[in-house]
Amino acid sequence: MNNFEFKNPTKILFGKGQIESIENEIPKDAKVLMLFGGGSIKKNGIYEQVKTALQNHEVVEFGGIPANPEYSVLMKALKVIKEENITYLLAVGGGSVIDGTKFLSAAALYEGEGPWEILTNKIPILKGMPFGTVLTLPATGSEMNSGAVITRKDTKEKLVMGGTGLYPTFSVLDPQVTHSIPHRQLVNGITDAFTHVLEQYITYPIGAALQDRISESILQTLIEVAPKILADPTDHTAASNFMWSCTMALNGLIKQGVPTDWAIHAMGHELTALYGIDHARTLAVIAPSHYEYNLETKKEKLAQYAERVWNITDGSTEDKARAAIKRTEAFFNEMGIDTKLSQYTDDYEGTAEEISKRFKKRGMEGLGEHQNLTPEDVEKIVKMSY
Amino acid sequence: MNNFEFKNPTKILFGKGQIESIENEIPKDAKVLMLFGGGSIKKNGIYEQVKTALQNHEVVEFGGIPANPEYSVLMKALKVIKEENITYLLAVGGGSVIDGTKFLSAAALYEGEGPWEILTNKIPILKGMPFGTVLTLPATGSEMNSGAVITRKDTKEKLVMGGTGLYPTFSVLDPQVTHSIPHRQLVNGITDAFTHVLEQYITYPIGAALQDRISESILQTLIEVAPKILADPTDHTAASNFMWSCTMALNGLIKQGVPTDWAIHAMGHELTALYGIDHARTLAVIAPSHYEYNLETKKEKLAQYAERVWNITDGSTEDKARAAIKRTEAFFNEMGIDTKLSQYTDDYEGTAEEISKRFKKRGMEGLGEHQNLTPEDVEKIVKMSY
Repeated sequence: MNNFEFKNPTKILFGKGQIESIENEIPKDAKVLMLFGGGSIKKNGIYEQVKTALQNHEVVEFGGIPANPEYSVLMKALKVIKEENITYLLAVGGGSVIDGTKFLSAAALYEGEGPWEILTNKIPILKGMPFGTVLTLPATGSEMNSGAVITRKDTKEKLVMGGTGLYPTFSVLDPQVTHSIPHRQLVNGITDAFTHVLEQYITYPIGAALQDRISESILQTLIEVAPKILADPTDHTAASNFMWSCTMALNGLIKQGVPTDWAIHAMGHELTALYGIDHARTLAVIAPSHYEYNLETKKEKLAQYAERVWNITDGSTEDKARAAIKRTEAFFNEMGIDTKLSQYTDDYEGTAEEISKRFKKRGMEGLGEHQNLTPEDVEKIVKMSY
Repeated sequence: MNNFEFKNPTKILFGKGQIESIENEIPKDAKVLMLFGGGSIKKNGIYEQVKTALQNHEVVEFGGIPANPEYSVLMKALKVIKEENITYLLAVGGGSVIDGTKFLSAAALYEGEGPWEILTNKIPILKGMPFGTVLTLPATGSEMNSGAVITRKDTKEKLVMGGTGLYPTFSVLDPQVTHSIPHRQLVNGITDAFTHVLEQYITYPIGAALQDRISESILQTLIEVAPKILADPTDHTAASNFMWSCTMALNGLIKQGVPTDWAIHAMGHELTALYGIDHARTLAVIAPSHYEYNLETKKEKLAQYAERVWNITDGSTEDKARAAIKRTEAFFNEMGIDTKLSQYTDDYEGTAEEISKRFKKRGMEGLGEHQNLTPEDVEKIVKMSY
């Protein structure tokens, strides 16, 4: 096991009716900017619940933060923060709204030239404007970590940021939000969280017994819960387990002391950029090819995953590893997710070369837990996923 | 799953050589009181490592905190804190030193009559003097939670305290400390952590799938690691997994949204008070009888534990539950722990009645996850453990 440092100060308020407790989590004298997305919260009642909880607070609203939170929109919110002397941010939404709010938390206190350089110069944010979240879509884990992904259309960039100052002060996780989440988004959420665990688990053995078992616990729970929540999004037990699993998948706990991969995400992001394919679905497209291509370096962990998560015990290490990849792909397929690029676009020829070229141009460092995957490797992996 | 609130702000510094990083965790202008126990840290090199790390800090020392941290000793430390204008506490030791430091953290800022009333009046501590810990004995989990148990000899009391202000600011977990831990204490540590998980897991099903699986993960890891660390305390991988499992067993994560028991601890504490039996060993004495006595209400979780942790799959729910109890007792026995009170004292007759009488006298509320175990039940359980 590697050395590690771990601290996660976010307060989780989990369960039915927890939205009302945000009244006591936000300082009474705060001037709050409430941030949200396309307005679904006005249909499912969450907007009303938040407004009621904050009826004794001074609240300004900013809606319209899009999926893949866009810099130009966020800059408009930043203007509101400055003009209105906002002191506290409240994200009410999914990963995109929360990530956008993290950018604003950093940008509000940033004293450099322009806030975009936080992303381009990879400036770690040690202190941001305090913010809380009300999660409306279990998937990304952003509600209990300190990272964010921000998109800028005019330069076609999608960059990451983070820092110990960007943990939400609190996050409300009320599983009842699943009642109104469209089927497609539930499937995406399960797939996203599942792949988050795989990226931190399917690497090479390093003797971190407990981290491995907790990763397997999250995967097993997601597998168990998927058919239940998809059949009935009002199943409270299923919704609770789904929501907590998504948070635990990326709150930092399972990555402590172990190598991590994240190559699937790097390649998947490009498929979203090129074809607008849902983030989670790009992961399901890339993962099987990535694991097949890297079987030799990943086979021990793949075989462990086969045995402990899928109960596949026959054959050699390689046999089990291959069976685990197939079973994972089948799991995605069973939820209705296509796992080949050609099922999303007819125009897939040349995609592998294009992505490889992009990585080369950016001077990509080696991908994967060994940091040794080259743009040539990326080309082959993406081609396998056609 | 029940609603829950969860926040754990302790920063964990895990791994080889992490003691040196405390230099950067304690403010430069702090006046530090370094607290420790009987002096073993002067033999195993940890004292020197801490002193070297803090060579640029102003440090006062207070040694001699005993196992079951004693109020009268702590009151002497409190006098030092006031006289020397201490601003930061550093616990270097196991659960007793850390628990004693938590009491001092609270007492140093307490403005009531006398600090003992923090315990008798169950005053929740929302703010204490900041403190960090260097853990020298994996077992109690105190390094990453906000609770403490304090003993007072003159009144024969052993009381609990806690509050959100009592989380350590940081805790150093260097698995190399296991090298010099006596075999008996390693066995105690494994047993203590194992029982901590059982107390939060062997209750009744409430649909908390992920919490169950994480509890099982900790139990499985402890079972796997026990023979390795006991055979070779310098096995770094085993030591790392042992140490992290002990912390995770009682850092609050696995109790979220689920019922908890803690009756084994309540009864075990009395055996320590009456006969001076090591805390962990009292748990191993009580646990089998407690589970046997409460088989009817606990059988579903016991059977789940049987299947998932011990791979016991034959028979009815009751059969599996009984087999799990037997297997747990055997696990303790295999480590060299006696699980019958008569193996610790010849003078055991009347113990059950005495403990029952004590509970009655204190106006004990019902024990266990259903809060329905009476002093009469306690008498029967303790008698079964003779």
